[in-house]
Amino acid sequence: MLKLYYTPGTCALASHIVLAEAGADYSVEKIDFKTGQQSSPGYLAINPKGRVPALVTERGILTETPAMLAYIAQMFPQAGLAPLDDAFAFAEVQSFNSYLCSTVHIAHAHKMRGHRWANEESSFADMKRKIPETMRASFSLIEQKMLRGPWVMGEQYTICDPYLFTIAQWLEGDSVDINAFPKVAEHFRRMSERVAVKKAFAEQAA
Amino acid sequence: MLKLYYTPGTCALASHIVLAEAGADYSVEKIDFKTGQQSSPGYLAINPKGRVPALVTERGILTETPAMLAYIAQMFPQAGLAPLDDAFAFAEVQSFNSYLCSTVHIAHAHKMRGHRWANEESSFADMKRKIPETMRASFSLIEQKMLRGPWVMGEQYTICDPYLFTIAQWLEGDSVDINAFPKVAEHFRRMSERVAVKKAFAEQAA
Ligand SMILES: N[C@@H](CCC(=O)N[C@@H](CS)C(=O)NCC(=O)O)C(=O)O
Ligand SMILES: N[C@@H](CCC(=O)N[C@@H](CS)C(=O)NCC(=O)O)C(=O)O
Repeated sequence: MLKLYYTPGTCALASHIVLAEAGADYSVEKIDFKTGQQSSPGYLAINPKGRVPALVTERGILTETPAMLAYIAQMFPQAGLAPLDDAFAFAEVQSFNSYLCSTVHIAHAHKMRGHRWANEESSFADMKRKIPETMRASFSLIEQKMLRGPWVMGEQYTICDPYLFTIAQWLEGDSVDINAFPKVAEHFRRMSERVAVKKAFAEQAA
Repeated sequence: MLKLYYTPGTCALASHIVLAEAGADYSVEKIDFKTGQQSSPGYLAINPKGRVPALVTERGILTETPAMLAYIAQMFPQAGLAPLDDAFAFAEVQSFNSYLCSTVHIAHAHKMRGHRWANEESSFADMKRKIPETMRASFSLIEQKMLRGPWVMGEQYTICDPYLFTIAQWLEGDSVDINAFPKVAEHFRRMSERVAVKKAFAEQAA
């Protein structure tokens, strides 16, 4: 039995959807950012980084979205969520997810988490103003060079898809019109209709 | 035959060392940041992100350090650079590398690349001032919670080790004393003596 620590509205949604897609036996536990629970001693014992997501497995606790997604795909091979028998195709999956994690998620994080990298209010305001530009640049690259269609990797639905969907959800709040990216917008609509996505949202709202 | 695009002093060193450790047949080509070659049309055709590293393979081009490192480990299994037959242990490797990529490398990047996330000179200066603090916090976590010793994952030398070494190289320029982290410092010394590390440095200096 796997257990996912999540907070609504965060990147933890990607792992949640992938657990549902995999047909895994899992439970979820909410971490409350409003009370700073991610930095409480109890949660730091689970994830010393003070972030969500974290995945409790029988072997130990995993953090970092790209690693967790690949792990779930490998543990549930029958779900076909990654090209496990093709090192190059698997590397393409990992590369896409690493870009989301290290560039797109990071661009977005400068809206609310500027204090990670600077100290002055004026810097935070400056970072916030740039969010639409950096998010637009990232999604432009995704639209033009990465998303093959209908799914990120082409015909095969993979762990890249829930991760892209999760981050694309942030575009509206970041003042970027998703319709400027027709393939991303169509991908977003198709993702919204999946049973696993609805299941994850329902579980996070419960 | 694999080909690595790199720039001296960058995160591309991790992939370079891993190619050497794997005993791969590879060549390297330098991209000159001083003339902005990473943003030239020629290089953007190779990596539209305008960054190093990029790895040219027979199947296509790969970018993103964690994906490239795992790919090399999978292509050269006899080198034993990752626990390929144990999904959990492999996920721990991926998790460590994802942390380096999305948190530690990003912390460091705020020294010279503040323009990615802000526009004002005052913000760049603010970000620069915070580098020692953010790098120290990351390496503190690595020292206390991640690096098992003698190698990152314990007894097995993996793709995590050249990546940690690559980023630890930046500490001095970031005004952080590596000796504040005895396990990291000892790891750094042991890495410096490896044949593959000396080979990569020699090839980058050529
Ligand atoms: N690289 C990590 C990043 C995790 C992360 O930054 N999570 C955010 C939510 S999207 C968080 O927990 N923030 C809480 C905080 O910064 O206090 C991953 O991809 O899993
Ligand atoms: N997430 C990428 C990041 C690559 C990256 O940022 N490379 C830097 C050098 S360490 C670069 O090419 N910078 C050039 C620039 O920003 O113009 C990876 O881990 O490979």
